[in-house]
Amino acid sequence: MFSLRHFFVLSLALNVSLILRLMMHQAQQKPHHNHSVTHHEEHNNNIHKSRMLISSSSSTSSFANSTSTTGASSNNRVINLDHGDPTAYERFWRQTGDKSTITIPGWQSLSYFSDVTNICWFLEAEFAREVVRLHNVVGNAVTEGRHIVVGTGSSQLFLAALYALSPIDSPEPISVVCASPYYSSYPSMTNHLKSGLYKWGGDAESYEKEGPYIELVTSPNNPDGHVRRSKVNRSQGFLVHDLAYYWPQYTPISAPADHDLTLFTVSKSTGHAGMRIGWALVKDQEVAKKMTKFIELNTIGVSKDSQLRAAKVLRAVSDSWEQGNSKESESFFKFSHKLMANRWKQLRLVVERSELFSLPKFSPAFCTFFNQVLEPQPAFVWLKCEGNVEDCESFLRGYNILTRSGIHFGVSPKYVRISMLDTDENFNQFLDRLSAIQS
Amino acid sequence: MFSLRHFFVLSLALNVSLILRLMMHQAQQKPHHNHSVTHHEEHNNNIHKSRMLISSSSSTSSFANSTSTTGASSNNRVINLDHGDPTAYERFWRQTGDKSTITIPGWQSLSYFSDVTNICWFLEAEFAREVVRLHNVVGNAVTEGRHIVVGTGSSQLFLAALYALSPIDSPEPISVVCASPYYSSYPSMTNHLKSGLYKWGGDAESYEKEGPYIELVTSPNNPDGHVRRSKVNRSQGFLVHDLAYYWPQYTPISAPADHDLTLFTVSKSTGHAGMRIGWALVKDQEVAKKMTKFIELNTIGVSKDSQLRAAKVLRAVSDSWEQGNSKESESFFKFSHKLMANRWKQLRLVVERSELFSLPKFSPAFCTFFNQVLEPQPAFVWLKCEGNVEDCESFLRGYNILTRSGIHFGVSPKYVRISMLDTDENFNQFLDRLSAIQS
Repeated sequence: MFSLRHFFVLSLALNVSLILRLMMHQAQQKPHHNHSVTHHEEHNNNIHKSRMLISSSSSTSSFANSTSTTGASSNNRVINLDHGDPTAYERFWRQTGDKSTITIPGWQSLSYFSDVTNICWFLEAEFAREVVRLHNVVGNAVTEGRHIVVGTGSSQLFLAALYALSPIDSPEPISVVCASPYYSSYPSMTNHLKSGLYKWGGDAESYEKEGPYIELVTSPNNPDGHVRRSKVNRSQGFLVHDLAYYWPQYTPISAPADHDLTLFTVSKSTGHAGMRIGWALVKDQEVAKKMTKFIELNTIGVSKDSQLRAAKVLRAVSDSWEQGNSKESESFFKFSHKLMANRWKQLRLVVERSELFSLPKFSPAFCTFFNQVLEPQPAFVWLKCEGNVEDCESFLRGYNILTRSGIHFGVSPKYVRISMLDTDENFNQFLDRLSAIQS
Repeated sequence: MFSLRHFFVLSLALNVSLILRLMMHQAQQKPHHNHSVTHHEEHNNNIHKSRMLISSSSSTSSFANSTSTTGASSNNRVINLDHGDPTAYERFWRQTGDKSTITIPGWQSLSYFSDVTNICWFLEAEFAREVVRLHNVVGNAVTEGRHIVVGTGSSQLFLAALYALSPIDSPEPISVVCASPYYSSYPSMTNHLKSGLYKWGGDAESYEKEGPYIELVTSPNNPDGHVRRSKVNRSQGFLVHDLAYYWPQYTPISAPADHDLTLFTVSKSTGHAGMRIGWALVKDQEVAKKMTKFIELNTIGVSKDSQLRAAKVLRAVSDSWEQGNSKESESFFKFSHKLMANRWKQLRLVVERSELFSLPKFSPAFCTFFNQVLEPQPAFVWLKCEGNVEDCESFLRGYNILTRSGIHFGVSPKYVRISMLDTDENFNQFLDRLSAIQS
């Protein structure tokens, strides 16, 4: 049904697109390197960083990567591991062929609405069904008694949760806290609109205020990969569990998560960051309604096309597991677990030979999904520069490796966060350079 | 290349989806009719309204509509014309066949990034190219010297514009104003987060404050369809032009719009509301950067799938015009103009026979696109109840016609806004009932 001719046309379209992109860039774009960052930004403008470095042929775009192989062995090429751009899984998705391909005719999904009988009226039933199925397959979250709210990535759902959990007529904004090191975008996402409803309250460890608060619990944690529980533990706390990385390729699955409000995203589970699809499992009906209201006011719903595509991709993941390791197909989680295991093994070898760097220590644990004791293998390396190096980000930038400094995560600049999800080419280059630093 | 077999499979998938949706609804959904609206909402919860009425088989969902034809001739069926859900164009898109069909393989668009050399780093070049082409074909906007910022619908771009135009360190929020009747969502979108950056300032006509302000200019206007210019006209104003309806099927195109910041959306231009794709044409580079930053903090970019699909759909629209009225294809704008013309003609006949209702008066004008003098035929009817009827929305609700009251648009409840973009079936039912009221 899906012939070589189709692939040929797709490949041709990609080529045309690349050529036009290059032409458009040269013809239309004014140079905007070194432009100043103008708005109140608490931390590094990561995209800006990428853009400034495009002239040295670095890019986290998978399109641009595929055109920059020529200088691959050169140390002049900048390797951008600042973002967690999940391009590592591309090989798997190429193997799946039309099992993960979606076709959408022009007349489909014209309406704003998916199902007006659902609290989340823009939720595609097909997507919701595959979310429930995947959680049942993996065993990483309880879905019974939960409302599913779909979002434009889990970022939008994070903001929707803040809106939904903030008291309506409080004289001052509710504090939003998270134990450090915390995801670097939480503070700016919380504060960029100077909302009167909620306000970044900093490190949960040192949070002392009385009254209601919102605590973000990221587990496994971004950036350091550790399993977490809430820290504040006071009666008036609302908890938001960000479980973007609670998937078998990154961490042993210990039990189905059973919280009030849990966030997931396809970006990290299947690697489809470009879809911008996340979902929340929400116990309280009123909270689900308010989150839906936020998304209505913010974007009047969520792309139907991406929801349908996400449904297809999640189905392919569940199918690939349930069909086991048949001749023609490999399970997504086996593929991705093996990929991460290999990368972590290589990385540990390099770092252990060195006295300049160190890694977090993880304890192995029983994984109910793979049915064996396994090591965590996070999506990011939380690397520490030992010895005299005080600013690890600047130090690595000297070797054309872009990382994100610990200061953005509320801790010391001796730490950096480094993506483990980039292309094979970039990951291998990164290891080569890290080895070279030590010798 | 696109066989009947493909269509058969698609049709089968739709059937399965409909059946499962119905099953899921009965099995999982708890009834939530008459639930209370809990958060600070300035106006009617429209979705809520739909949901409450689902039991009487009304729905603005195109899926639900297609299952609710049985009771079509019954006056008990609720017709929801409160939303501007653009399902009227479905027939055109069915005719186009694979010209508007998109196929996306599982490995495509994994990355967050589209083009890191572009200010709007998540903008798909193919989509940007088709936006420029369509504006050139239609002649409704100047694109030279503009940055294109893509958004999750024009709603997100509206919020991005507020963020980008608000002074950074102002002691108080900037006022956001619009002449009444104004789009009913502007106040709640502006105020729902109690932002310290911007605040709804009400009717532009009566705005008297000194200092900077943001004025929204919607032209043709939602709800009343009139062509508009800015009202406040003071030196420190930032203008946001919302031109969602500045397309030939709704209004004569007078000249290419040439403003600082202009918003468009596929929802109203092509009828693809479910895609959630809008675009801004932005003159100032710093404003384009800040809008991009907002979308980064809000949703880390915009669905690539929908951008690619929007590119395909816009291309089909431009192609259909440039290829003229060939045997096999009709131009989208001729189709949609004819559809709107027919609907307005029928509506005028009904209203003119009545003493209960009146319509706005429009002057014909020369349309540079169709190259003739034409009448405006807006996407909404701005209907006035004459005589003793003080609450037109309640009055029409008595006939199972859902509309949106003038009070949500900042004016008298003698007015209502009624969608002209619903299905043929709903539109015809609406006309029948309106006729019956008068006799």
